[in-house]
Amino acid sequence: MKKSLAIYQNTFSDYLNQYISDLQKKQPKELYEPIIYILKSDAKHIRPLLCLLSCELYGKKIKNALPSALSIEIFHTFSLVHDDILDNSPLRRGKKTIHTKWNTNIAILSGDALLIESFRLITQYPPDISYQLVKTLSTASLEICEGQQEDMNFEKKEFVSSNDYLEMIRKKTSVLLGTALKMGSIISEAPLAEQKKLYNIGENIGIAFQIMDDYLDTFGNPKIFGKKIGNDILTNKKTFLLTKAIEKSNKKQLLEIKKILKMPPSKEKIQLMTNIYTQLKIDELAIHYVNQIHQKTLAQIQSLKVKNKDTLELFSQLTHQLIERTK
Amino acid sequence: MKKSLAIYQNTFSDYLNQYISDLQKKQPKELYEPIIYILKSDAKHIRPLLCLLSCELYGKKIKNALPSALSIEIFHTFSLVHDDILDNSPLRRGKKTIHTKWNTNIAILSGDALLIESFRLITQYPPDISYQLVKTLSTASLEICEGQQEDMNFEKKEFVSSNDYLEMIRKKTSVLLGTALKMGSIISEAPLAEQKKLYNIGENIGIAFQIMDDYLDTFGNPKIFGKKIGNDILTNKKTFLLTKAIEKSNKKQLLEIKKILKMPPSKEKIQLMTNIYTQLKIDELAIHYVNQIHQKTLAQIQSLKVKNKDTLELFSQLTHQLIERTK
Repeated sequence: MKKSLAIYQNTFSDYLNQYISDLQKKQPKELYEPIIYILKSDAKHIRPLLCLLSCELYGKKIKNALPSALSIEIFHTFSLVHDDILDNSPLRRGKKTIHTKWNTNIAILSGDALLIESFRLITQYPPDISYQLVKTLSTASLEICEGQQEDMNFEKKEFVSSNDYLEMIRKKTSVLLGTALKMGSIISEAPLAEQKKLYNIGENIGIAFQIMDDYLDTFGNPKIFGKKIGNDILTNKKTFLLTKAIEKSNKKQLLEIKKILKMPPSKEKIQLMTNIYTQLKIDELAIHYVNQIHQKTLAQIQSLKVKNKDTLELFSQLTHQLIERTK
Repeated sequence: MKKSLAIYQNTFSDYLNQYISDLQKKQPKELYEPIIYILKSDAKHIRPLLCLLSCELYGKKIKNALPSALSIEIFHTFSLVHDDILDNSPLRRGKKTIHTKWNTNIAILSGDALLIESFRLITQYPPDISYQLVKTLSTASLEICEGQQEDMNFEKKEFVSSNDYLEMIRKKTSVLLGTALKMGSIISEAPLAEQKKLYNIGENIGIAFQIMDDYLDTFGNPKIFGKKIGNDILTNKKTFLLTKAIEKSNKKQLLEIKKILKMPPSKEKIQLMTNIYTQLKIDELAIHYVNQIHQKTLAQIQSLKVKNKDTLELFSQLTHQLIERTK
């Protein structure tokens, strides 16, 4: 019988829960309580899942990838905790953010501890594996910081090119998906060429995922999407849609876009910008982009030289789910 | 001819300056400018110096310890950047802190990047050395976060025992000095027993250093100390002096201490608390403590089984400077 993705999810959840229960014994509780709180929130655990799958692809048991999968999830959690301070976000996964529930100082410090933990966790591996994991994670982490800074810079710029936007999301989002896949393959001692391919696949999944996110924010079905439609338009957020619309617009349309960007948040603002996007066929362009990346990624996945064909099928299935999502 | 400590300082400064000039080529500049700014400020580089010395003690050239010394200094810088946000400090090393010169978001993110860099830098070593360095640094870093949280907790407590205080400063300050020494000895492949001794020596130096810091804040010579005398008393800071005074006081003296703690900041407040400390001979106690640790540490240093006796002498000399300071 073939395994389903749920089995990987459950294996990781059990491991995470054991880790959380170990944290509950640690002092000072003021440091560990916020960490436990955020780790207990309802997360999708996409990155750990990718790490477990890529390890199994090359023949090692998934339990070998668990500390590394946890490291990736802990790193991801660190980045959410600090990003939520930077973005002043009150909510995360339907719960209050740490800086809102406690305060900014607690959020800074517990984020720091999470970041450190992500490195400490991978010292559980033998030296040569651990070394490669630290090298991979630290290089990626720095790129993620750069991406976060670029995102902050974009807020202050009037116009951002779609290329700059795509490079920013590559760093901010995609690098960690690539890293998750690469780390699993390092543990399974896959050839370097395979590790590189997997990293690249992860990057592509991340970019497609983010473009889809931008698309759904404007063109998603409000009954399915789960978040309010049009939020990116209301906040003038630089997205794939906006950066492409500006590049594709003629003089008159550009003036119209500038006018809409100056409007205060309103239903009308959402409607007018959505009209421009539709006029310029940006919705179709986004879907076309996503499909292109999807096809390319599936071909890359099929070209991997793996030991475990069943796992490859599950990996394709997960990739499909991540890219062709409606919420 | 024997080397002087200045040679180690200069070697490290040159290496740091090369690193800074590499950072100047990196993008986005909004991320790297604050990092360059803080790294260029006037620092004592005590931790790198300890790392270089401990490497040389066991026969390897100091150039081998440079990336590790830099990692320690970068980690230390990260902790200053984030601590300055937590403490809301406007100045550091006579310059504006990053969150004051730029803003809190920039300070959070550049601190994160520094923390990540401290790990990335030690992946320059061969896998088995790098592995031990990451393990040592990550374990220490987590303790440092715990110490920082305990320090924050102390602010809200009416009384803190001197034991809890000493444990907090061990974590917050001493662990990194121990780590600096241990990392140098790892690079020189010193026996484990020596690594442990060095770690312990570093912890002792750190504790003596901090007690001396507390002592000088009240009893230092204002012409030499460089900072305003009595600042800890003005801010009711839990220090070695205050925690010991509370423990040694009789009922009447304790009431007096409580009264002084409730006073608003004033010259009188400083005078009254200083009187209590003198009455209870807390000044003598602090010096006695520092001397005891100093003697113990010098004996530990002499018991090290090193290859390089000249370096051992320099190390004793530095230890003396760090502990028996007047500013």
